[in-house]
Amino acid sequence: MAVEAGRVFVYGGKGALGSACVSLFKSNKWWVGSIDMKSNEEADGNVIVKSDQSWTEQQEDILAQVTKILNGNKVDGIICVAGGWAGGNAANKDFTKNSDLMWKQSVWSSVIAASIASQHLKEGGFLSLTGAKAALEGTPGMIGYGMAKAAVHQLTKSLAAEESGLPSGSLVASILPVTLDTPMNRKWMPKADTSTWTPLEFISNLIWKWAQKEERPANGSLLQLVTKDNKTEVIPA
Amino acid sequence: MAVEAGRVFVYGGKGALGSACVSLFKSNKWWVGSIDMKSNEEADGNVIVKSDQSWTEQQEDILAQVTKILNGNKVDGIICVAGGWAGGNAANKDFTKNSDLMWKQSVWSSVIAASIASQHLKEGGFLSLTGAKAALEGTPGMIGYGMAKAAVHQLTKSLAAEESGLPSGSLVASILPVTLDTPMNRKWMPKADTSTWTPLEFISNLIWKWAQKEERPANGSLLQLVTKDNKTEVIPA
Repeated sequence: MAVEAGRVFVYGGKGALGSACVSLFKSNKWWVGSIDMKSNEEADGNVIVKSDQSWTEQQEDILAQVTKILNGNKVDGIICVAGGWAGGNAANKDFTKNSDLMWKQSVWSSVIAASIASQHLKEGGFLSLTGAKAALEGTPGMIGYGMAKAAVHQLTKSLAAEESGLPSGSLVASILPVTLDTPMNRKWMPKADTSTWTPLEFISNLIWKWAQKEERPANGSLLQLVTKDNKTEVIPA
Repeated sequence: MAVEAGRVFVYGGKGALGSACVSLFKSNKWWVGSIDMKSNEEADGNVIVKSDQSWTEQQEDILAQVTKILNGNKVDGIICVAGGWAGGNAANKDFTKNSDLMWKQSVWSSVIAASIASQHLKEGGFLSLTGAKAALEGTPGMIGYGMAKAAVHQLTKSLAAEESGLPSGSLVASILPVTLDTPMNRKWMPKADTSTWTPLEFISNLIWKWAQKEERPANGSLLQLVTKDNKTEVIPA
């Protein structure tokens, strides 16, 4: 087995943004593990998420798979880009159903990623989570989504604080996108102004720098990704 | 049936703070419904929460019970004081288990209360939710608790915004206590300085004023309850 430049897990590694991260780290000779409901064939190892499990079952199952795959090695980073979107206000017939789905997609994954970090991240490693700029304020038209992302924001602050259970010197930061430039978003919003959408490569390159221990933001940062005229700025909240 | 001065539901009406609210509104001749896992015998109506249900099942069951009890009447207010506490950082063996419990106790109840409000609250009525002052920042020693309360805070902002699904003119506000002066807290923290604990009657009286449409805070307020030398101040976050 060749010596890898580094090791990273991508939670949501089969999604659009996750796949971009897997590709970038692979092209730089890192060992890459993917955690998702389906395998990412480009990854060196795949942890399969079973959606019919409870949160605790899912965490135990994923941790067992991660521990087996790592075989005693530690990782330099964990990138959690799992998530999803659903709308609806308090009068929507699917209010609780969608709130439940948003919680599972964004918070279960983030918490399990933090749990992996507590056991398998190197000292000085990084954990990136995915929030949402919109959830810094009220989100009446997508209440479940806003609650889940607000929870991820607060989790980021907790994990960055002393005695959070992460290894010493860890960096924890969340990216807070507005809209990502993904094939699915292009499909569902064919008439939107894509010059305000954030390219996936911008995000994978941003996190790649953290992996190099370059341009790391302050621990606990909530980083708004604001794209205008196809140019993206990183604005700490 | 006598004409009531007003109608209110207390979610968590069998708990310490909920019981204080039930008693105060009853003593002022209001019709009071309690929503909890056990009946509050002082209440005029009881909706029983079944803890083995999924979120959506629980919401549907509770809404059906509420609709039946109200029999076409609307309520002037909904007080959600359901909640709980569990500690633990990301390395704690019960990290996901406790995060799950906190979510169910604080967020399921708050979302179902908002759902009731969308269907049964009068125009100009109020909905009070329960956050936590600590969750305005990171809470590394009680991560699941912090996430759940941060979600309630963001929910408060969403519900107070336009098109949230609540009736027009509604007030939504959250109380953000530090420590409540309850029998359980006295039992488990026998040596604590109780001069910084907030009396239950302070809170029930605060909400009672909102019910009278007096001293209502700004819509969407997060009201920190800070008690010092047995005196409580209400400080908007």
